[in-house]
Amino acid sequence: MSNPKRIYLDNNATTKLDENAKALMDSYFCEKYGNPNSLHIFGTETHKAIREAFNHLYEGINADDDDDIIITSCATESNNWVLKGVYFDVLRFGEKNHIITTEVEHPAVLATCKFLEELGVDVTYLPIGSNGTLDAKEVEAAITPKTALVSVMWANNETGIMFPIEEIGAICKRHKVLFHTDAVQAIGKIPVDVKKAQVDFLSFSAHKFHGPKGIGGLYIKKDIKLTPLFHGGEHMHGRRSGTLNVPYIIAMGEAMRQASLHLDFERNNVRRLRDKLEDALLEIPDTFVVGERSLRVPNTILISIRGVEGEAMLWDLNKNGIACSTGSACASEDLEANPVMSAIGADKELAHTAVRISLSRFTTQEEIDYAIEVFKKSIQRLRAISSSY
Amino acid sequence: MSNPKRIYLDNNATTKLDENAKALMDSYFCEKYGNPNSLHIFGTETHKAIREAFNHLYEGINADDDDDIIITSCATESNNWVLKGVYFDVLRFGEKNHIITTEVEHPAVLATCKFLEELGVDVTYLPIGSNGTLDAKEVEAAITPKTALVSVMWANNETGIMFPIEEIGAICKRHKVLFHTDAVQAIGKIPVDVKKAQVDFLSFSAHKFHGPKGIGGLYIKKDIKLTPLFHGGEHMHGRRSGTLNVPYIIAMGEAMRQASLHLDFERNNVRRLRDKLEDALLEIPDTFVVGERSLRVPNTILISIRGVEGEAMLWDLNKNGIACSTGSACASEDLEANPVMSAIGADKELAHTAVRISLSRFTTQEEIDYAIEVFKKSIQRLRAISSSY
Repeated sequence: MSNPKRIYLDNNATTKLDENAKALMDSYFCEKYGNPNSLHIFGTETHKAIREAFNHLYEGINADDDDDIIITSCATESNNWVLKGVYFDVLRFGEKNHIITTEVEHPAVLATCKFLEELGVDVTYLPIGSNGTLDAKEVEAAITPKTALVSVMWANNETGIMFPIEEIGAICKRHKVLFHTDAVQAIGKIPVDVKKAQVDFLSFSAHKFHGPKGIGGLYIKKDIKLTPLFHGGEHMHGRRSGTLNVPYIIAMGEAMRQASLHLDFERNNVRRLRDKLEDALLEIPDTFVVGERSLRVPNTILISIRGVEGEAMLWDLNKNGIACSTGSACASEDLEANPVMSAIGADKELAHTAVRISLSRFTTQEEIDYAIEVFKKSIQRLRAISSSY
Repeated sequence: MSNPKRIYLDNNATTKLDENAKALMDSYFCEKYGNPNSLHIFGTETHKAIREAFNHLYEGINADDDDDIIITSCATESNNWVLKGVYFDVLRFGEKNHIITTEVEHPAVLATCKFLEELGVDVTYLPIGSNGTLDAKEVEAAITPKTALVSVMWANNETGIMFPIEEIGAICKRHKVLFHTDAVQAIGKIPVDVKKAQVDFLSFSAHKFHGPKGIGGLYIKKDIKLTPLFHGGEHMHGRRSGTLNVPYIIAMGEAMRQASLHLDFERNNVRRLRDKLEDALLEIPDTFVVGERSLRVPNTILISIRGVEGEAMLWDLNKNGIACSTGSACASEDLEANPVMSAIGADKELAHTAVRISLSRFTTQEEIDYAIEVFKKSIQRLRAISSSY
């Protein structure tokens, strides 16, 4: 029998679409279904809503009017685009052939870097410290005259730990190196300001901030060249071809607006619930949370529970109607050790006992109270039958 | 005052989402919103609908179970992926450095070929005949020992003219050359069978067959390698990363199912309405339709109306509530001469007076009767004030 409770604590994997966003896009499927590039009314009647959506996106990350925000199908596309675009623009000629990134980037960055290595690009994968973050000085130390691009995520998907993006931005500026940040896990959780961060490229994905899955964006600072990943018609000033996904653009714009409106709520209310849950879990002996709270976005806990396999824990939680994760959802069918836990030097057992809990603004006090109870009981039960505890 | 009539005859640009497809996807935005890669119920409860959608896609193009159909964000992505994937797999090493395509492909193919030329690839752009189609023998004649890939569209977006895909498939097979077809304008209009056509790659876009905008697919024959365009997590067997767009996958599957179910309707009813409109327009003096009817998909008319600028015609139609196009919607804001008209050698005036009319299974007899009246009146009015007629 399925559990009547449905408590979703896996918001770093994906989120529920905001109901306002759904309502706004709804009439653009079967009624106002024109191609915005068409000259007739079916095309032009979409323009106002699209324009408003773009305004929300620009405001959401404090972009300038003459910067570009290009709609993509997801942050994976945005990340591939930046790295491969810079490859075609700069790296392939060999004079500058070096990228700096970190060991804990999203697979969309890491796998693309591996691919570029096969093409002759040098990539430095900076390690992170045992506190889960990166010292900006290490980025500076890694820059050479051959460095073309630095790509560092704004916040880590597993731990929620924020990286010193503003410092890194200033360093890249000083050294005249292009700077890309994958801000997928930052938007909607903390203020993201492309000007303060001095980024040249910033990737985001709507479905991580209560927009739809299958749409995202790439911020490109004005006057920065980037060879397209999608060649074709002249959509998006020729930067990214393909018929515009009108409903999702409208929904993503509204999701960004709602995310911006709720930043205080995130900082106060979501954090308070997260901290309550975390405090309760840390009262249980032999539990270990990765990263200082002050270094983390407000919604995330990555906790190791000694003696309890992450998958066993997930299974038990799921039976009780609670959804969490053992690692990046992109790889969560793999049942491997949590890669970020490994990167911070956690021992193998800790890495295999990691559970990620990620809240959203839709998480309630009642849900957290219930989750605390379930966690306590499950840990007790699973440790009782554990061979390693 | 806006016209109360809304008659959509621009279905080669984009289509209305099928209401059944919308209904099926609707609960996957705010209720069943999990990431299908997650192990918990929010993830797993999406699996059945996704599996069914894939079944519809496989059946719709007669793919084998061990072939791959990979979800992309649109045919532009699929087309870029094939061409750039073959570049990374084969072309860049130079031993085989030749692509054969046609002058009238979609910009996603043409612009990508131009880009690959910059990287040192040789591209042959086959001209089409004055009848608007391609002789398969010309493909064979263009093949050299250096040819790696042939890319020819199944049906042209402007004229609706079908290309001899089965013959070309057999030729490519015989010469051991990879064969890609952009089937965007064929699916939902005529039977598309990847086995009969012996294609290695086939691109499609949901929004051309009453699925949503912003999702498409790439068929890849079993055992055919293709370097990913999106590197990242291990989605889609590692071939295309990015969180799955669950609602749109479900909608695209249903749209494909509906398209397959309506192929007879398309061949009979849509064609009958198209022919009725075409007959009526051809009764008007100095009008010229591109391509034999037997060579065209059932829904498309590309007509030149001597003395009437295409844009003036569109404007008049639009005022009367009728939506048509002067050319590929991807470029329709450009107001250039219709590129396919130019390619078939039509004189400049004919190319500037082309109007594309594209029906769908939702087009009614009443709409066509009304359209005939409006066309007649508009042509009369516009010719009366024309400087060239």
